[in-house]
Amino acid sequence: MFLSTERQWPLNAWYQAAWSHEVADAPLARTLLNEEVVLFRDAEGKASALEDRCCHRATPLRLGEVVAEGLRCGYHGLTFDGTGRCVAIPGQDTIPRNAKVRSYPILERQEIVWIWMGDPDLASADKLHVDFPWNDDHENWPHIHDMYEIDCNFMLLVDNLMDLTHIPYIHRKTIGGGDQRGQVDATMDVTETETGVHYIRWMEGIVPPPTYVKGAGFTEGTLVDRWQEFEYVVPSSVVQWTGALEAGRGARADREQDGGFNLRLYHGITPKTESTCYYFWTPLNGYKPKDEAATRILHEEIAVTFDEDLEFLESQQACMAQTLDRPLVNVKHDVARVPARRAIERMIRAETA
Amino acid sequence: MFLSTERQWPLNAWYQAAWSHEVADAPLARTLLNEEVVLFRDAEGKASALEDRCCHRATPLRLGEVVAEGLRCGYHGLTFDGTGRCVAIPGQDTIPRNAKVRSYPILERQEIVWIWMGDPDLASADKLHVDFPWNDDHENWPHIHDMYEIDCNFMLLVDNLMDLTHIPYIHRKTIGGGDQRGQVDATMDVTETETGVHYIRWMEGIVPPPTYVKGAGFTEGTLVDRWQEFEYVVPSSVVQWTGALEAGRGARADREQDGGFNLRLYHGITPKTESTCYYFWTPLNGYKPKDEAATRILHEEIAVTFDEDLEFLESQQACMAQTLDRPLVNVKHDVARVPARRAIERMIRAETA
Amino acid sequence: MFLSTERQWPLNAWYQAAWSHEVADAPLARTLLNEEVVLFRDAEGKASALEDRCCHRATPLRLGEVVAEGLRCGYHGLTFDGTGRCVAIPGQDTIPRNAKVRSYPILERQEIVWIWMGDPDLASADKLHVDFPWNDDHENWPHIHDMYEIDCNFMLLVDNLMDLTHIPYIHRKTIGGGDQRGQVDATMDVTETETGVHYIRWMEGIVPPPTYVKGAGFTEGTLVDRWQEFEYVVPSSVVQWTGALEAGRGARADREQDGGFNLRLYHGITPKTESTCYYFWTPLNGYKPKDEAATRILHEEIAVTFDEDLEFLESQQACMAQTLDRPLVNVKHDVARVPARRAIERMIRAETA
Repeated sequence: MFLSTERQWPLNAWYQAAWSHEVADAPLARTLLNEEVVLFRDAEGKASALEDRCCHRATPLRLGEVVAEGLRCGYHGLTFDGTGRCVAIPGQDTIPRNAKVRSYPILERQEIVWIWMGDPDLASADKLHVDFPWNDDHENWPHIHDMYEIDCNFMLLVDNLMDLTHIPYIHRKTIGGGDQRGQVDATMDVTETETGVHYIRWMEGIVPPPTYVKGAGFTEGTLVDRWQEFEYVVPSSVVQWTGALEAGRGARADREQDGGFNLRLYHGITPKTESTCYYFWTPLNGYKPKDEAATRILHEEIAVTFDEDLEFLESQQACMAQTLDRPLVNVKHDVARVPARRAIERMIRAETA
Repeated sequence: MFLSTERQWPLNAWYQAAWSHEVADAPLARTLLNEEVVLFRDAEGKASALEDRCCHRATPLRLGEVVAEGLRCGYHGLTFDGTGRCVAIPGQDTIPRNAKVRSYPILERQEIVWIWMGDPDLASADKLHVDFPWNDDHENWPHIHDMYEIDCNFMLLVDNLMDLTHIPYIHRKTIGGGDQRGQVDATMDVTETETGVHYIRWMEGIVPPPTYVKGAGFTEGTLVDRWQEFEYVVPSSVVQWTGALEAGRGARADREQDGGFNLRLYHGITPKTESTCYYFWTPLNGYKPKDEAATRILHEEIAVTFDEDLEFLESQQACMAQTLDRPLVNVKHDVARVPARRAIERMIRAETA
Repeated sequence: MFLSTERQWPLNAWYQAAWSHEVADAPLARTLLNEEVVLFRDAEGKASALEDRCCHRATPLRLGEVVAEGLRCGYHGLTFDGTGRCVAIPGQDTIPRNAKVRSYPILERQEIVWIWMGDPDLASADKLHVDFPWNDDHENWPHIHDMYEIDCNFMLLVDNLMDLTHIPYIHRKTIGGGDQRGQVDATMDVTETETGVHYIRWMEGIVPPPTYVKGAGFTEGTLVDRWQEFEYVVPSSVVQWTGALEAGRGARADREQDGGFNLRLYHGITPKTESTCYYFWTPLNGYKPKDEAATRILHEEIAVTFDEDLEFLESQQACMAQTLDRPLVNVKHDVARVPARRAIERMIRAETA
């Protein structure tokens, strides 16, 4: 609907289905790329994903229970293991060969449950292009996981993250406050990568925004050098490292100095349907890792910011869906957004060729 | 949508439109087999059914009033008698011949208002195949009438009643509690009839479920012989007689003994649309007929049970409607459900041949 | 859907977009004739209307802000003047020629903001056929503006106003109370005009309805001569003058006498979609113009009356939309309604010929 290719997403790719902690001893239902999926974790701790439909009477398996043998349908008790094979039918000994449901390859890494919705024979771990080791390092990068369901095409959220000049407009009361002009006129270095696009923006000697002041405790009148480093990785991850140091401390040369403000953010954006998506996000506290309250406050501040985006994304979706025949006009600040779109369209074309 | 024939229901058949007490001196609107119908009772007590649309300006007649002459439209006062003829137009003496609305044959019996949605010339009382005399016997079978609107195809509800192995799963906290295995492994006698299917299940020497204990006052440790007798009558009635006697009292030979637990249930299931239905139900207290509180408690317990079914039926409907192209697998316990489906499909085919 | 022509409304005509006071320093979004429009008023007080979609990323402009240069998009800051031209893009000096949004001709008169949704080259002030000078005379005709969003085709509301025999039925508890028969049997003088239809109804020597008694203070037992004068002006205005004088005071010869009950009402009905509309209305207090409380009470009484119509209009819409293939029957009291329909159909045919 919003891409120049007909297909909205590649099928043969890993998508985030859930945060690891969400997949536990109760079935978890998700709509992924237009399919109804149910996730569960067995007694050995292995996560599995099945189609959310019993093969007996089309009842959703999410209404069932996780038992020793697998996932048991809540209607008449048919039970399926993690491969989708029916392993028990109450009241009968022989299980027909066609009693099975579809299962989906799962890969669990760095606190993320990845799912492969395409051809299972093509699934392999080396096709996961994103790496976010900080998720495994709660000591130095403490963080809280979150997920929003948003009524917009998943790429509208990628668009949002690829053009940060929206910050001084949408977020002028939170992270976009302070020096509006300085934020729009940041330097911008964009590099196309094999799997997406990378950019870094620098705003030097600017007044820090309220969120940064609150987080890092910059004193009244301090100017800062602020950076925003983002990488989009197809099909639907964005890795972020942003922060600020007092001007004069040489942030450009060394961003890993103590003090200042410094956070990483993982964004996982998975299509539910053409017009809806899951937005998995977690901000990692890199500036006061021993301070639990700081981690919590950081999470709350980011949540407020994302809430501001929601109204825009959902209104944009509704408007765009109604006006697909009308032209759009790119501007200079689409310099990272446009190659991000090209990257996913390339991936879709390669798959459908 | 859920039958192998194209048509979802026979038209030339009696369907429950309402309980008798529901049709009173105010118009009652119902959507029946995709048509908007309004029911009312005239001063002589005769129930009538008209299309719910004034022939003047397509205003629903349900917004009108029952007056001496019939049903008066609430917008401009046109009045229609029970045959659908316009008998009054305010401000004019001559009534045009085409001023009329459609009327539907009505048959009222055993506290049920039956409606005929098909060809009126084919309607006759002998085509009502269901008989439930206990509705007329409030002394020995006191009961309360109820109705649920459910977002599922009407035959999913019939399916539900034709395979009681769902009870130890969906209703494990109410009527399905106690001996789960014993309930699944009941003996099952199925007989196809001219108008549907009949079955009786026996569970002998089992722990009674909590609902039965509450109702009949079985003492701690008592085992019972429990029966479930059901008959499906096309197109959409299910007649039920269930109960339990202490094991050893010879329930199989004589179920009409005093004591124990014993109820009849009438289920009337009428399609609103392909994906929604009305579920008329009334449980009749045959075990403590003089005890008003027992009748009320029975009704409440059954309501709790049916509430448990609702989530399953509506989720199943949504899932099935989305996956019509996917196969389903019958199991041994579909032994009554499958002939019930065959019976209604036969009836539809006979009508459309 | 409800007209015998295919098109639902003429495009080349003035429609009420808003009351003047509604268009202020914040953007106001309206759906007009199936198009999303945003209205705003610039620093000089000039009202403008643009399509509610930024040409950059299809974000609704209603989420933006009115600034000195025009309306600024809330997402990335593009700014448009009242003609739809983009006058600012943050971060770039050159503005591409195709950076523009559609604008709509606006005409503001008598407290109404009129919009022209068709070919802008055809828009001219002389094509506004309705005149309601009393809106500008708050001293002698004090009034409060209101607007309802109604889920019905706009012409169903015109129909409602063209056949007042609905009053003793729908409004029997408010303005239709009192002498029901007398109200139905009013004399009715209908005149087709070049731009619609005019009628006046007289009910002489009748018991006044409760609303009139409350408003004018008629004493117990007083009979009145009551008039209802209405004019429909294509495409979607209805101008009303109604009132009552004590019987014997010669109301027919002179309705402008002091005392009695006397109000004017402006009805502006603008299609949102085929099945929804905006209903702009204001009742003008012509009987106690110095009495602020009377103006407020009049407004509240009329609001109660219109609330009674709402259920009918929305139910009628739903019923009519479902039964377009079924015939309707006109009655004698459609004598003004039918020429009103003919007038708008003539206008649509002239435009589409």
